[in-house]
Amino acid sequence: MNKSFFIKSIPMGLIVQKYGGTSVADSKRIMNVARRIAATRMDGNQVIAVVSAMGDTTDDLIKLAHEITPKPNPREMDVLLSTGEIVSSTLLAMALKTLGFEAISLTGAQAGIKTTRQYSRALITDINPDRIYDELREGKIVIVAGFQGVTEGFDVTTLGRGGSDTTAVALAAKLGADKCVRYTDTEGIFTADPRIVPDATCLKEISYEEMLELSVYGSKVVHPRAIELAEYYNMPLIVASSFTNSPGTIIHGGKMEVRNKVTAISHDMNVAKITVQGIKDEPGIAAKLFVPLADAGISVDTIVQNSSINEMTDLTFTVAEDDIERATAIVKTVASQMNAKVVTDTHIGKVSIIGGSMLNGTGYASTLFKTLSDENINIDLITTSEIRITVIVKEDKVLDAVRVLHSAFKLNED
Amino acid sequence: MNKSFFIKSIPMGLIVQKYGGTSVADSKRIMNVARRIAATRMDGNQVIAVVSAMGDTTDDLIKLAHEITPKPNPREMDVLLSTGEIVSSTLLAMALKTLGFEAISLTGAQAGIKTTRQYSRALITDINPDRIYDELREGKIVIVAGFQGVTEGFDVTTLGRGGSDTTAVALAAKLGADKCVRYTDTEGIFTADPRIVPDATCLKEISYEEMLELSVYGSKVVHPRAIELAEYYNMPLIVASSFTNSPGTIIHGGKMEVRNKVTAISHDMNVAKITVQGIKDEPGIAAKLFVPLADAGISVDTIVQNSSINEMTDLTFTVAEDDIERATAIVKTVASQMNAKVVTDTHIGKVSIIGGSMLNGTGYASTLFKTLSDENINIDLITTSEIRITVIVKEDKVLDAVRVLHSAFKLNED
Repeated sequence: MNKSFFIKSIPMGLIVQKYGGTSVADSKRIMNVARRIAATRMDGNQVIAVVSAMGDTTDDLIKLAHEITPKPNPREMDVLLSTGEIVSSTLLAMALKTLGFEAISLTGAQAGIKTTRQYSRALITDINPDRIYDELREGKIVIVAGFQGVTEGFDVTTLGRGGSDTTAVALAAKLGADKCVRYTDTEGIFTADPRIVPDATCLKEISYEEMLELSVYGSKVVHPRAIELAEYYNMPLIVASSFTNSPGTIIHGGKMEVRNKVTAISHDMNVAKITVQGIKDEPGIAAKLFVPLADAGISVDTIVQNSSINEMTDLTFTVAEDDIERATAIVKTVASQMNAKVVTDTHIGKVSIIGGSMLNGTGYASTLFKTLSDENINIDLITTSEIRITVIVKEDKVLDAVRVLHSAFKLNED
Repeated sequence: MNKSFFIKSIPMGLIVQKYGGTSVADSKRIMNVARRIAATRMDGNQVIAVVSAMGDTTDDLIKLAHEITPKPNPREMDVLLSTGEIVSSTLLAMALKTLGFEAISLTGAQAGIKTTRQYSRALITDINPDRIYDELREGKIVIVAGFQGVTEGFDVTTLGRGGSDTTAVALAAKLGADKCVRYTDTEGIFTADPRIVPDATCLKEISYEEMLELSVYGSKVVHPRAIELAEYYNMPLIVASSFTNSPGTIIHGGKMEVRNKVTAISHDMNVAKITVQGIKDEPGIAAKLFVPLADAGISVDTIVQNSSINEMTDLTFTVAEDDIERATAIVKTVASQMNAKVVTDTHIGKVSIIGGSMLNGTGYASTLFKTLSDENINIDLITTSEIRITVIVKEDKVLDAVRVLHSAFKLNED
């Protein structure tokens, strides 16, 4: 049976919106969000809104669990944390009803969001859209508690980091929405962090790939996982402010090959570097180091291995600064078995230029290196991808680097 | 298939325990509750524990909703409130696991508790015990979030007042538990309020009917609804302290006819009286008054109608003092249509003596009246049931009345 027959007796757009914890932090803000949803509805659209937990709710619940035990059971933790989004979804539905709109909140389970059994980092396997279709057909605005789902056995799971973004994109994809809008406290995606570069401009558009690099390499506006999902389903994802009416930035397929320009500069201070000096250059060394780090849940970012001299080599890599103590302990254990020396540095930062077909274009790398050199900023490490060049520099040089590169690549010009 | 074959490879008792909001008010108390459950388990019993929301959680959630709207949507309100019990159930399961016991929390929906669609006061229609059986069979202690269930359409409902007590008794009945223990902050059921009568004693046992009268007429220890359910299924219900190891009071079928003595004295200050004077004594008057009160959700308690003089009569009844303003407004509207006068009094209280076969026994009423008369306590209204005599007296005489009656009926003696 064709579902759309029931939903759209007159042609209507379907828009999925996502509101983060800051946007629903208190009752006043929840009313604001309700008004925004109401306006979208009044424009003739059907609306599904995905919400995060209010403000610090999730942290408060984690604290509560940690009062009981330092290692809470993962299944119980997920049920506990899922209540945060349930609370905000019911309050938002109440708010819409006071504005005279028909609305209903659905938990992840009620919204048909099926996941794997990996508690705290479950993956969405499918969505049964029947209930949502039923509610939309009755003319209701549907509010879905983000970040959560259920297993086949009807156990509650949470989706981990970027969970609510992922819920929104997955719903938009499954229900064939026209677009997915992620509301946040910024105007959109900027050419650089506007707190560092005052004349940074808000991008009208950016490709999925560029946004993915940006989100991994500094900007936390949208979680990489949600971007990957949007890209897979070719779902246009808009990032806009929940406090203003500016159009925001559209993340979509784009036309990467013909654009061929630097789109944005990102930076990240939460970086630390570990160098293992004097390793015998033989197969299996990398595995010996990186397998135990992965087992401990520590993400390794940039990895650079020097050319071997006399069959000895140095290996340098970066981790999040938060992980440096745990990482160093693990690496030292491994290094001591091969008589290698471990040196760490937390006073570093990462600066990346991101743009379409960067490696095929000419002059990006040379402009980057010359600009930093002219400012006496020394480059420690370099890594590149198809659409990104990243340099590691001293921490106290990061902001200068962002500013001079933003000018050098003329990102302040429209 | 015989479920019990799977559950009891060796004979084990099944005990349902219920812990109120005070017993799980913080992490320390939750650990205490976990230890109590663990001890019951170590005694060789299977345990299902039903929990209320922590301390003031429910009030906090109501406040949150009222920040959005003075009249929150009932469906959304129920989903919102249900999170309180979910939170405490997960924390208790975590606590048991830290003590080395296998435990799992279940929401009302997961526990198979099916209800009517009456939001905020849903009735349990059935329980699908499959999931609980599965978990018990795996040797787990099952923690159930009280006060909640789901409709056929998978919408979350709450059971209203006494909800968690009702959840516990319903589960005990459905699963054929050996007993249901309701833990609270008192030692059990007392012959009178121990704060008023210092030598009040804790009862070893009390019949369902007596407890029902006690709970309606003052003592709030167990909700009448849960007692009625326990009586219907003949499920022994024990009231005991979650802070001590005293045996508490068992509420059961008893042997009412042979007991024939006063069991306890209850009192209630939350009473107000409405008198409608000068009503023409004709059929339909009571309906005209009490139907609109019932429609407004106001419970009417004691009703006394004087003998008619010249076809005119007076009608007096009591309501909870909290309801007096709303009730008076309704009654005045009705009374004005029949030229009757309305008089109210909030400075009254209710004192009841409760015991088996009271009306068949002799001397209870006369002892009651003589005792109060000797103390110069004037009786305003009198009502009786099979096992109860209630008098309405001036508010400032209530505590004296309780004390002298407790002595007169020798309730301080074992």
